[in-house]
Amino acid sequence: MKAKEVLKEHVAKNVALTDEEFEYFFSHFELQNFKKGQVIISEGSIVDYEYFVISGCLKSFFINDELKMFILQFAMPSWWASDFDALYNHTKASISLDCITDVEVLRLSNANREKICREIHSVESFFRWRTNRGYVASQKRLLSFMNNNVKFRYEELLSLYPELYNIVPKNLIAAYLGVSRETLSRLYHT
Amino acid sequence: MKAKEVLKEHVAKNVALTDEEFEYFFSHFELQNFKKGQVIISEGSIVDYEYFVISGCLKSFFINDELKMFILQFAMPSWWASDFDALYNHTKASISLDCITDVEVLRLSNANREKICREIHSVESFFRWRTNRGYVASQKRLLSFMNNNVKFRYEELLSLYPELYNIVPKNLIAAYLGVSRETLSRLYHT
Repeated sequence: MKAKEVLKEHVAKNVALTDEEFEYFFSHFELQNFKKGQVIISEGSIVDYEYFVISGCLKSFFINDELKMFILQFAMPSWWASDFDALYNHTKASISLDCITDVEVLRLSNANREKICREIHSVESFFRWRTNRGYVASQKRLLSFMNNNVKFRYEELLSLYPELYNIVPKNLIAAYLGVSRETLSRLYHT
Repeated sequence: MKAKEVLKEHVAKNVALTDEEFEYFFSHFELQNFKKGQVIISEGSIVDYEYFVISGCLKSFFINDELKMFILQFAMPSWWASDFDALYNHTKASISLDCITDVEVLRLSNANREKICREIHSVESFFRWRTNRGYVASQKRLLSFMNNNVKFRYEELLSLYPELYNIVPKNLIAAYLGVSRETLSRLYHT
């Protein structure tokens, strides 16, 4: 039951649930496996779930009007991924989510999240903390994107997430930084 | 007591508090007035408060390595503003927050927010919803920034927030869109 342990440890970092509360919380999740390259959310689709990564790596991305791909987020173990705008507001997905490697996730439906937040105050507290963290990461990502210094941003990314260097192809790292693969190569002879 | 009414209406959009609960919630806020141009948070400072706008307009911004200003957010009435990374993680501010017009705000300290979230489940629920909304707005902002079509983004901004057109100088709108004032003028003869 590796998945349960990963989620339990993640939750315990912020809130104290009794074993009984955690079991109940966990009973609302479903374990899913995806293969490398599989699409979990595609742009334009309805989004009913958010995904907690147990193993592997996801990317959420967006293709702009000039058909250039931008990566919003890499999601590694213990990160959550979805199109949260579509999920919370019942609109169609404006981004896609797919698998960089084989992936194991725990998925949670919108309805179940709201249900357990209502039922257990500490669970609501956990999700507030989770979203606060996501919000801050998103603001930092925006600041990073506004700052043109690619070299700094590349080094910052790899110092925050050194494991990305081995898992994620360089063309995807370039798409995350908003530069071409060639620009990244010139800087790093990668 | 306009401020109290604005906050009450904002909270009631998402959660149901009794009058007594709302009075208690409200007692944790402080009313503050700032003049146009005043700085509320400056980069590098300690951040202890978040600000709920009652009247006027704030901007949060960032000066990049090439001394170019980027605007992360305009905060109009019923919006919240702060450097949330610094606020939640007790780090120094990486952005600044100042007043585009004279401004009236309700400020809430980090400690008081956590206290009332612990004490009243519905208040925790409110703040989860609030941050979810902020997170989604931040993700949309990132998508908008990644998409190079300035004309589309300008029209989107003004259709979402038509009141900005009269309140915010065009050079600040350009800084929000990540283009020069000249580029914006060429597109719109503004």
